[in-house]
Amino acid sequence: MEEDPAGTVKTKAENERNERRTSTNHDEEQMTSPQVLSYLCRHLYNLGWMPGSGGAISMREGDTLYVTPSGVQKERVKASDVFELCADGSVLSGPSNLRPSQCLPLFQLIYEVHGPGTIIHSHSIAVVMATILYPGRWLRLSHLHMIKGVPRQSTGGRRRWDEELCIPVIENEAEDKDMAGSLRVALSAQPDCPAVLIRRHGAYIWGQSWDKAKTTAESIDYLCDVAVRMKQSGLNIELPPSGEKGFE
Amino acid sequence: MEEDPAGTVKTKAENERNERRTSTNHDEEQMTSPQVLSYLCRHLYNLGWMPGSGGAISMREGDTLYVTPSGVQKERVKASDVFELCADGSVLSGPSNLRPSQCLPLFQLIYEVHGPGTIIHSHSIAVVMATILYPGRWLRLSHLHMIKGVPRQSTGGRRRWDEELCIPVIENEAEDKDMAGSLRVALSAQPDCPAVLIRRHGAYIWGQSWDKAKTTAESIDYLCDVAVRMKQSGLNIELPPSGEKGFE
Amino acid sequence: MEEDPAGTVKTKAENERNERRTSTNHDEEQMTSPQVLSYLCRHLYNLGWMPGSGGAISMREGDTLYVTPSGVQKERVKASDVFELCADGSVLSGPSNLRPSQCLPLFQLIYEVHGPGTIIHSHSIAVVMATILYPGRWLRLSHLHMIKGVPRQSTGGRRRWDEELCIPVIENEAEDKDMAGSLRVALSAQPDCPAVLIRRHGAYIWGQSWDKAKTTAESIDYLCDVAVRMKQSGLNIELPPSGEKGFE
Amino acid sequence: MEEDPAGTVKTKAENERNERRTSTNHDEEQMTSPQVLSYLCRHLYNLGWMPGSGGAISMREGDTLYVTPSGVQKERVKASDVFELCADGSVLSGPSNLRPSQCLPLFQLIYEVHGPGTIIHSHSIAVVMATILYPGRWLRLSHLHMIKGVPRQSTGGRRRWDEELCIPVIENEAEDKDMAGSLRVALSAQPDCPAVLIRRHGAYIWGQSWDKAKTTAESIDYLCDVAVRMKQSGLNIELPPSGEKGFE
Repeated sequence: MEEDPAGTVKTKAENERNERRTSTNHDEEQMTSPQVLSYLCRHLYNLGWMPGSGGAISMREGDTLYVTPSGVQKERVKASDVFELCADGSVLSGPSNLRPSQCLPLFQLIYEVHGPGTIIHSHSIAVVMATILYPGRWLRLSHLHMIKGVPRQSTGGRRRWDEELCIPVIENEAEDKDMAGSLRVALSAQPDCPAVLIRRHGAYIWGQSWDKAKTTAESIDYLCDVAVRMKQSGLNIELPPSGEKGFE
Repeated sequence: MEEDPAGTVKTKAENERNERRTSTNHDEEQMTSPQVLSYLCRHLYNLGWMPGSGGAISMREGDTLYVTPSGVQKERVKASDVFELCADGSVLSGPSNLRPSQCLPLFQLIYEVHGPGTIIHSHSIAVVMATILYPGRWLRLSHLHMIKGVPRQSTGGRRRWDEELCIPVIENEAEDKDMAGSLRVALSAQPDCPAVLIRRHGAYIWGQSWDKAKTTAESIDYLCDVAVRMKQSGLNIELPPSGEKGFE
Repeated sequence: MEEDPAGTVKTKAENERNERRTSTNHDEEQMTSPQVLSYLCRHLYNLGWMPGSGGAISMREGDTLYVTPSGVQKERVKASDVFELCADGSVLSGPSNLRPSQCLPLFQLIYEVHGPGTIIHSHSIAVVMATILYPGRWLRLSHLHMIKGVPRQSTGGRRRWDEELCIPVIENEAEDKDMAGSLRVALSAQPDCPAVLIRRHGAYIWGQSWDKAKTTAESIDYLCDVAVRMKQSGLNIELPPSGEKGFE
Repeated sequence: MEEDPAGTVKTKAENERNERRTSTNHDEEQMTSPQVLSYLCRHLYNLGWMPGSGGAISMREGDTLYVTPSGVQKERVKASDVFELCADGSVLSGPSNLRPSQCLPLFQLIYEVHGPGTIIHSHSIAVVMATILYPGRWLRLSHLHMIKGVPRQSTGGRRRWDEELCIPVIENEAEDKDMAGSLRVALSAQPDCPAVLIRRHGAYIWGQSWDKAKTTAESIDYLCDVAVRMKQSGLNIELPPSGEKGFE
């Protein structure tokens, strides 16, 4: 281990990268955005949300976007594989042999409308099955405690467990960019929900920080999983509970 | 690695922390309570019991309570993130930017009534599905060997595999503290069961030591999982077996 | 790293322990039997076969038995937690605060009848559900490639994928030792099958070496899983395939 | 750590092994083919595709084949356990106490017809259940986004998400080599699909590089999983969607 030689001058870019750090409430060890994306890719792959080379994640810091690469094994994405882009999508840096995720136009749209810090695009089977078993414009859930894990987008405030959470569902298109129109409609139809499902495809879920995006995404995934299991058991999450009578 | 300088005087607080250790039957390497809570958070997250920022764990040593923080990714809780509190809930130490779990009033109530050393609050999907598919005041299980993994609370003694284990189920409320009344009724209605389920929410499960709380919780979770799979297969765990005829 | 001082004399016991090693076909790094049991406990816990403190494993070398301890978290069993016993069950060494698994009498019986080197006692949910959904004296499987992974006990030879594998099922009893009689009958009724299922409880599965016991156990577990999924889909593994018509 | 003595001459074999490296798009740290097979075995075991000692993987570099050994725990296959063979199947090197996978003749056939770089033989339960629940000559899938993860074999180009992907299914036979005839027919019947399913057995899935083979295999596995869950929910992936009406 060599000492840093005295008089070393860090470049402006290096200093900016050092300052450009994510904040998590409970973690003094801080990661840069590319490091967070690498960590999340591996974590979400292990949750089953990024099989094949599917799924993508993006973070925004000021006018700079970070996006995972397209077409690669997500559990092996390193910080140096992450693209750094201007808000308009032009590439500042990234591996020369790869391209940024094709989700980029949808990430940009969600940033434009809602301005989150981190957006997760999941291919989870629980989400896909929920969009197949609940075929309408909304997945309507209520009376599940985990609803409290999905913040109100307008205020960041908490929901009641027994209120109706309406998650918009858009139909899939040939290319991700072709969904920009329907995504914009869905975002404005339900401005308080930090998630949109894509039928037979997956979900976009976001939050102000990477840890909020991740915990919100885990909550949505859990709710979809319960919705699917209820349908498979002859029940329907969209109907109010009946006949449940425990201690109260 | 520096030698401890001769004459070093440990503070009273340091000595107490060193003495304040959990005992596990089979582990000479000992962890402090905050270390155990950090270990358990990561372990139970990996079992799927703490998705989003859900779930919580508490330990009690004498008059001191330890509680996990609210609203954070549970698999990343470090020992230094754990709150240390008086029995009345006033905070002795903990991270300044976080709050103790909102489960605290229910943890305190269970300590008051049953005095366990460790309490696990799980959001496991198996538990939630069991409360949805079995809608009454009790989940009644019998004729499953794993029932022997749920100790009798009064004596710590073992159950028979073919006796009926009645786990109380309380209805969910807007806030955890609002369930104090129904939880108290459920605890006194079934004083021998170290677990209470909360409909469409999760479970509280406890034991005298952290390893007993964990193995009891895994047994309850397993039993709920079997109960759900039986319902999904057209069977009902609450009915006695019929037509089973193996070697005997 | 200190050199071993010249002239050191190893005790007979140490030499025996060094020689007493398991052989695996494909692994030059060798483990002692207690190390294998520790490794397998952690591995099988992660497969979901040893939740709570359930399940047990035993190995035999000549007249010496090794057995995992009772009532502890199996994923944390260390080599030093493993009991060493005479063939008659008297303890040679082991942790003073623990007891050998209550499965010991059944392990001894299986050693007596079939003489395997390693026996796994699993609490897998797939196995338990198979015994609930197929209520008779046998689980009869055929036309599954994985049947080839279950050796013929008499010869060690391979089965055909389309022959019928009959796994005996015994009814559960209050204590493991109470099943000795029915286990003996089942073993003699089906001497060629290296596994017995226990209704609503789990399975005993064995092999000549620890790796054969483990791969056989994984094959049995997989077959039970397919049998359960077929029943849940309205099919029955005990009936021959009909209407299947692929390329041939 | 010793310095490499000056003047050391590497043998031709060592140089060739150093040059014989796989290329992955996004990974500067490079592995040799045997190292890749070891890595993949452990990874795919953890996905549940290689239980027991089932499954196999092969890579081809020029005229040299690499094949995993038969009958061993796949999660413990080391690079030195991998066989190196001539294209005709004669062994160049490999562990003396093991044999190459019995899949070798089918690997050779797929190399001959389609020339991929890596072939994965999976025993995944999702694949097996798909072949049981969809009993015909083809598993026909459409309207699932993950179809885009299965390249067109002829061109390497991408599929539309709403086109029909027809995966051939062959009937299982007593020995892998007995399926050579039906596999050849299936390969020519559907030359554009880089996968063949074997009823009640598993799948062969391939790609030009190991990462493409793996991501294609994960995509196929995911599609089979969705197909099975739909059947279990009373739906049929082979019928077009009806009544789905989200935002568009």
